[in-house]
Amino acid sequence: MGKGMECSENSQTNMKVIQGEAGYVLEDVPHLTDYLPDLPTFPNPLQSNPAYAVVKQYFVNVDDSVAQKIVVHKDSPRGVHFRRAGPRQKIYFESDEVHACVVTCGGLCPGLNTVIREIVCGLYHMYGVNKILGIDGGYRGFYAKNTVPLTPKIVDDIHKRGGTILGTSRGGHDTSKIVDSIQDRGINQVYIIGGDGTQRGASVIFEEIRRRGLKVAVAGIPKTIDNDIPVIDKSFGFDTAVEEAQRAINAAHVEAGSIENGLGLVKLMGRYSGFIAMYATLASRDVDCCLIPESPFYLEGKGGLFEYIEKRLKENGHMVIVIAEGAGLDLLSASLQNTDLKDASGNKLLPDVGLWLSQRIKDYFSGQQKMVINLKHIDPTYMIRAIPGNASDNVYSTLLSHSAVHGAMAGYTGFVVGPVNGRHAMIPFNRITEKQNKVVITDRMWARVLASTNQPSFLNPKDFIEKEEPQTQIQLVDGGKY
Amino acid sequence: MGKGMECSENSQTNMKVIQGEAGYVLEDVPHLTDYLPDLPTFPNPLQSNPAYAVVKQYFVNVDDSVAQKIVVHKDSPRGVHFRRAGPRQKIYFESDEVHACVVTCGGLCPGLNTVIREIVCGLYHMYGVNKILGIDGGYRGFYAKNTVPLTPKIVDDIHKRGGTILGTSRGGHDTSKIVDSIQDRGINQVYIIGGDGTQRGASVIFEEIRRRGLKVAVAGIPKTIDNDIPVIDKSFGFDTAVEEAQRAINAAHVEAGSIENGLGLVKLMGRYSGFIAMYATLASRDVDCCLIPESPFYLEGKGGLFEYIEKRLKENGHMVIVIAEGAGLDLLSASLQNTDLKDASGNKLLPDVGLWLSQRIKDYFSGQQKMVINLKHIDPTYMIRAIPGNASDNVYSTLLSHSAVHGAMAGYTGFVVGPVNGRHAMIPFNRITEKQNKVVITDRMWARVLASTNQPSFLNPKDFIEKEEPQTQIQLVDGGKY
Amino acid sequence: MGKGMECSENSQTNMKVIQGEAGYVLEDVPHLTDYLPDLPTFPNPLQSNPAYAVVKQYFVNVDDSVAQKIVVHKDSPRGVHFRRAGPRQKIYFESDEVHACVVTCGGLCPGLNTVIREIVCGLYHMYGVNKILGIDGGYRGFYAKNTVPLTPKIVDDIHKRGGTILGTSRGGHDTSKIVDSIQDRGINQVYIIGGDGTQRGASVIFEEIRRRGLKVAVAGIPKTIDNDIPVIDKSFGFDTAVEEAQRAINAAHVEAGSIENGLGLVKLMGRYSGFIAMYATLASRDVDCCLIPESPFYLEGKGGLFEYIEKRLKENGHMVIVIAEGAGLDLLSASLQNTDLKDASGNKLLPDVGLWLSQRIKDYFSGQQKMVINLKHIDPTYMIRAIPGNASDNVYSTLLSHSAVHGAMAGYTGFVVGPVNGRHAMIPFNRITEKQNKVVITDRMWARVLASTNQPSFLNPKDFIEKEEPQTQIQLVDGGKY
Amino acid sequence: MGKGMECSENSQTNMKVIQGEAGYVLEDVPHLTDYLPDLPTFPNPLQSNPAYAVVKQYFVNVDDSVAQKIVVHKDSPRGVHFRRAGPRQKIYFESDEVHACVVTCGGLCPGLNTVIREIVCGLYHMYGVNKILGIDGGYRGFYAKNTVPLTPKIVDDIHKRGGTILGTSRGGHDTSKIVDSIQDRGINQVYIIGGDGTQRGASVIFEEIRRRGLKVAVAGIPKTIDNDIPVIDKSFGFDTAVEEAQRAINAAHVEAGSIENGLGLVKLMGRYSGFIAMYATLASRDVDCCLIPESPFYLEGKGGLFEYIEKRLKENGHMVIVIAEGAGLDLLSASLQNTDLKDASGNKLLPDVGLWLSQRIKDYFSGQQKMVINLKHIDPTYMIRAIPGNASDNVYSTLLSHSAVHGAMAGYTGFVVGPVNGRHAMIPFNRITEKQNKVVITDRMWARVLASTNQPSFLNPKDFIEKEEPQTQIQLVDGGKY
Repeated sequence: MGKGMECSENSQTNMKVIQGEAGYVLEDVPHLTDYLPDLPTFPNPLQSNPAYAVVKQYFVNVDDSVAQKIVVHKDSPRGVHFRRAGPRQKIYFESDEVHACVVTCGGLCPGLNTVIREIVCGLYHMYGVNKILGIDGGYRGFYAKNTVPLTPKIVDDIHKRGGTILGTSRGGHDTSKIVDSIQDRGINQVYIIGGDGTQRGASVIFEEIRRRGLKVAVAGIPKTIDNDIPVIDKSFGFDTAVEEAQRAINAAHVEAGSIENGLGLVKLMGRYSGFIAMYATLASRDVDCCLIPESPFYLEGKGGLFEYIEKRLKENGHMVIVIAEGAGLDLLSASLQNTDLKDASGNKLLPDVGLWLSQRIKDYFSGQQKMVINLKHIDPTYMIRAIPGNASDNVYSTLLSHSAVHGAMAGYTGFVVGPVNGRHAMIPFNRITEKQNKVVITDRMWARVLASTNQPSFLNPKDFIEKEEPQTQIQLVDGGKY
Repeated sequence: MGKGMECSENSQTNMKVIQGEAGYVLEDVPHLTDYLPDLPTFPNPLQSNPAYAVVKQYFVNVDDSVAQKIVVHKDSPRGVHFRRAGPRQKIYFESDEVHACVVTCGGLCPGLNTVIREIVCGLYHMYGVNKILGIDGGYRGFYAKNTVPLTPKIVDDIHKRGGTILGTSRGGHDTSKIVDSIQDRGINQVYIIGGDGTQRGASVIFEEIRRRGLKVAVAGIPKTIDNDIPVIDKSFGFDTAVEEAQRAINAAHVEAGSIENGLGLVKLMGRYSGFIAMYATLASRDVDCCLIPESPFYLEGKGGLFEYIEKRLKENGHMVIVIAEGAGLDLLSASLQNTDLKDASGNKLLPDVGLWLSQRIKDYFSGQQKMVINLKHIDPTYMIRAIPGNASDNVYSTLLSHSAVHGAMAGYTGFVVGPVNGRHAMIPFNRITEKQNKVVITDRMWARVLASTNQPSFLNPKDFIEKEEPQTQIQLVDGGKY
Repeated sequence: MGKGMECSENSQTNMKVIQGEAGYVLEDVPHLTDYLPDLPTFPNPLQSNPAYAVVKQYFVNVDDSVAQKIVVHKDSPRGVHFRRAGPRQKIYFESDEVHACVVTCGGLCPGLNTVIREIVCGLYHMYGVNKILGIDGGYRGFYAKNTVPLTPKIVDDIHKRGGTILGTSRGGHDTSKIVDSIQDRGINQVYIIGGDGTQRGASVIFEEIRRRGLKVAVAGIPKTIDNDIPVIDKSFGFDTAVEEAQRAINAAHVEAGSIENGLGLVKLMGRYSGFIAMYATLASRDVDCCLIPESPFYLEGKGGLFEYIEKRLKENGHMVIVIAEGAGLDLLSASLQNTDLKDASGNKLLPDVGLWLSQRIKDYFSGQQKMVINLKHIDPTYMIRAIPGNASDNVYSTLLSHSAVHGAMAGYTGFVVGPVNGRHAMIPFNRITEKQNKVVITDRMWARVLASTNQPSFLNPKDFIEKEEPQTQIQLVDGGKY
Repeated sequence: MGKGMECSENSQTNMKVIQGEAGYVLEDVPHLTDYLPDLPTFPNPLQSNPAYAVVKQYFVNVDDSVAQKIVVHKDSPRGVHFRRAGPRQKIYFESDEVHACVVTCGGLCPGLNTVIREIVCGLYHMYGVNKILGIDGGYRGFYAKNTVPLTPKIVDDIHKRGGTILGTSRGGHDTSKIVDSIQDRGINQVYIIGGDGTQRGASVIFEEIRRRGLKVAVAGIPKTIDNDIPVIDKSFGFDTAVEEAQRAINAAHVEAGSIENGLGLVKLMGRYSGFIAMYATLASRDVDCCLIPESPFYLEGKGGLFEYIEKRLKENGHMVIVIAEGAGLDLLSASLQNTDLKDASGNKLLPDVGLWLSQRIKDYFSGQQKMVINLKHIDPTYMIRAIPGNASDNVYSTLLSHSAVHGAMAGYTGFVVGPVNGRHAMIPFNRITEKQNKVVITDRMWARVLASTNQPSFLNPKDFIEKEEPQTQIQLVDGGKY
């Protein structure tokens, strides 16, 4: 840590914050030596690796940090930075000593197998590690007996397959039992691939490991097909998902365009954020209305969705609607209270917004409007999730995995990895779990969607300005990404 | 007609049947001269077409017929034949005289645009016809004002797009009005692309035209993504549909295999016949159970679906079910009577068998079995229907369209075209509308499916033999296709 | 064999020919009992297989034959037939007794792994066979030590991969050593996948086995991406190849269309026959000239290729040429004698017709014509060969493999399998090796290509008629396939 | 321009450089008011666009700049910045006044049509501009008569097609005639899409326009499938190209793996830089050797390519080599001097490095080594270039085009647009034409390739350090992207 800087650790969040001149802030990640100060170090074996022999400045400088703020004025403060990821000159594990494990949690996402592959290959080829376990079926696999041995040979071509060879599950998190299992098995590097819930779990695992004083590094690889993890540029699998969503939108476009008053409705992933819907809409150019969780909408009356559909069908004869799975959940909830959609067993029917909205549109036009429409509902969710990562996601996942490996080998712990403005960084858990990345609907990217679809904003500008002021202030300085 | 043959016309079906020696039967198609005996003929302009200059025996011999029966014994009767399709030496329309129209009806199917394209290009390039109208939006477009002029330039690259550029609709059939419209517009060749309902309509249009004594040829191009049209080898778009269905099955396989007790359920097209489900299952090899309309099944009890699912999950940890949309409709109907699934407006919910079966499986395992399963339902229907034809379907559709054009130009009418044992033939309407092509579940192809999935047959062999005897008899001689 | 038939065996070709009434001819295949008359038989285990329990007439009738002629007149002779493939009531091998081997020879073809998979799975699931060896690397693998054990588990997902898991090679055929190896290893069923050269080898292996009096069945599965094997409807992988060729043609079309005088030249497979080029041209509709081995062409002068290119570029600004690898080899040979294209080692450069024609066209326009053209040459050969079979080829390959297995189990030998008019049949070796299937350029299919491209026929009709008469006569009766 | 800054204009490069505190440098772009100081301004019509009504801080702050340096230390100088792209509050053109033109030059690249589309749609929908001309066939189209009118309707679905609807060409640049044509036609916004040569031309056009004192904005959109343009994050089409290259690599892998001593050699694009080869190698994981222009290699002797091939084939039985088209050109030139590869006209054969290397490898193994190898050469170049942009490139191209439109409307000129660290910026011409972006072989990304392939580095580390020192110094501060 350079002179002239102050380091404070917020006891609540356990966050190491280092401040420098001109408003420079480094939000640092924990290190094993924070609680095990006398750990020995070893030279990085990459020094004698022929592939790296000619690499200048191969090792990341201990002071390198990655700036979060790119759009600046001459006099703006330098702002938040994160510790740069990458190999360090000194490492805190010997090759023979490492016993790593990898676990995948939550829903499928293109690229999962590439991440697994590259943790294994990165540990093996770069650091000579050959004790690597796959935990079977998510967190609950920690307290099951079965594990999957992972070697470069076993993972050789898994990146060409969708899904995860380790299996996955939701929940199943019992911190004590998991840390017991880690201790019992002698594991000292834990790689946890999963979404924000999973990383929150990883954060608690890390805290417990720290409490017990174990020499165990915990590294998170954030996974979310929805791209709703903050700070990082984008999450692996997102590109592939947007690409694959084009198929469904195109099908909706063809179906709608081949029949009078044809209406294609595509439900895409995005429970809390509409990134896939937004980017798929921008990439496709065939979409007339894009509905996302961040942008409230209403169905009836002036400026409502029904009015817009009617207008668009009258003008153009057909239209395509894209809806993220979490959009309009307020309307859906209200709707469900008034009816009793029940399944055969008397359970309330699953509130699938695509099916719900399809029904509402059909009801509206068959009922009040006496207008015959032909609505086709397409839900490509599982067909998108299950494909392997594309080339772009494969390269991205490789770098991500290697960053996690370099970080853990260098003794960092309690961190996730991810690119910040194109450079891979290590980020403290709480920064990515404390809130979600969302489409900012007062930002230009969303305006581009509105401009390309010509859909109504469903907003009263005046109301909006008043309510949203605080958030907008934050937005003001950093600006959108583009 | 050769000597030694007898020709009878069945007044009810208006079918021309010609019989020859050794059990030879020709089920012939109508000709304009059947009711307009003195029509003049013209030499076929293909005679002076450079592309055909070196073609020997280019013109189909007037006596050529296509055998329906391929698998024979030395002493079996020769059986049913159809009139071979293809260009005739003499034609009954002059190029300048032809005023053709094309209409597409019913659901989308890969290759529709190719068929449209090749009717237009075939008429133009082979016969010098340049008055071709597209009827907009199915049968009801006949009595609308809008029509689409069709030229080779306009249709040049439509075969690379899904859907139909003419638009389509269901129903809308009013024979008098349609024939009035045909007369009013001076149309004398009508090309009708659609399924069995559409061809039944075409048949009635033809009858009315004959009744009015018009020189108008009516040619049907059978369209069914389900491949459920009898007599012909297969329908256009079927190959493409089976190919595209692989994506969904593969996704189901990946989803199911990545989670404990994962169950992927794919609903495919096939209201009355399970060909797509059957071929997609055989091509994919990832399917553990294939349910089709032709093969009844039951859920509960010994030998039922639930028992099989439970067994398969316990053995293998995951499974994939493919269900055709028309499978199990008896169970679904029974089920709906006992519950009141209603939508927001109080209407009974659409009986989608995929959603229904998914719910029943979930209910069963969550209820009686206390077994946690993870079911993922995938319905790729519209994503399959909306893609353009693949190469194989494009070539096939081209030949189909040209056969229709050659037939109409040669004065044949009231027929559909299609390959019979690989050779294109003209087939009387009633032969393809009187029944549907179905998977014969006492045939080897279905046995192959059962063998590849290891699913139960859901049948009591003894019962089955008794009930199905008559149909099986027919099957006996001709055998399955393979 | 039924009464009233005569059976003759041509000693030269060892072909069993059975004749019946009305011109019925059955070209039969050998059977182990031809030279081992006292072999015991066993009931087919499929009788007790639950999947087949309800199949009526499951077993192929001993008299079933498949007609080669489909287009008939009332008085035409019944013509050539082949023995129908499929399971027989009695088999000549017990499950435990079978020791099978599989070998793949020659170039890659989509679907190879599916064929391997289904021989293994067919033998195992239908007949309970579990001793199956893969011969490594083609014929020469017979006298190497390494073999690959084949089980349903090992081949489970190989159909999703291109290439052949067994490896392949060309040549390496030493009949004695191969039969010695078969004897030494105790192999009694030999499945040989390969092209006409390979099947000629298989035929000699069969003869030697018969000479030695071994109870070993030899079954060939014909493989040729070029579709140049006679008698059978088409070869596996052909559909996939035509589909994949569309990519290259489309790229050529885009490249040509984006630049002044753009000329895209695509070289496709087809050394002796132009089926891939012909079907890819018909499916794509973007091709202005299709050159195949069967249709001679010339470059210079009136009616030549250069004149056509110039005309087409002047009219349309761009064009696409498809050339099969074996087209114009006469011109290429003549051309090579006059120049000395040599490689770095002084060897004559490989006569790649795509590169050669590209250079000739460039030379012509830069030299004599002073016309700037932009030629882009695309050779997608290996990108086509290496992909897995599509759904259609997967189903087809499955049936093919099972037919081979049923045939061998039933004691037939010295045969290949393949569909004849849509029904799978067993065909004697010599019928598929004695000549090649070729595009008949006096047939309608080729005329369709000419009509769709508007290319010159490069023929003088009169000359042609005189020379080709005899072949055309044969063509007259059978007609083209469509 | 803020106080406390200094602005200097380098007369040679006409570059506006603004310097601020703490080492802040802004490399600014020209503005029409630099030479037309009294131009009137107008309010941006986006202010009244409903889509933008709720966008806070929609307009880019006049002082916004984008930092080029992301990896920083606490005391590093702030470094180079670029002017942020995006809409400005005041614009310098009225909607009615604008007469724009678009031209595409050089080779094809996925996404070209998307860029054209979005310039047209951006101008039309955001700024109400409807006079937009397409220049036909590259620069030389400026002095041809034909132009293509461009409207949103005309460009509606061109983004789904490969190539460029405007046509393209190389060269054809005559500055005076082009600027004459611009003046004659009354064009006042010129959008030029092309590579570094094209942008050098654009720079000269801009200078001539400034010299003549015309109110004409010149905006460049950098195009290079090779990704060899400096400063910007990546170029459009690159992602798509890397994705598509996977097909060829996969085919090479299958071909090589199916035969003894199989060697697949894939030639990819990259005349001066090896980015496509590098990323395709990293994404695929099937590559054993990646050869790029930046990394010299040698064939014979210890540590040479032949030795590595031999070793790899002996160990593994097969291998895949990827070579960028510009790799090893030194060897190729030397090789050509010693032989006389000539074409039919006596011209030296085009030095295609893929064909050349294939031949050299074949010669080596057939000659000196007596080792039979099976080499398959694949050149997918045109199949890659001709496909449409994928989803990621479509979104990227949209933003790029809109940035160009916003810049030109705001009176900026003589600039190209592109993302710098994820934010779109305007960059002076000379910064992107003065050198090329190259793979830094002393950086970690290349080391990752070497590590993944295990190929030799072909370098003597000591020699290298000495020669490359200066360039490495620059690299030191900024670091690689990841």
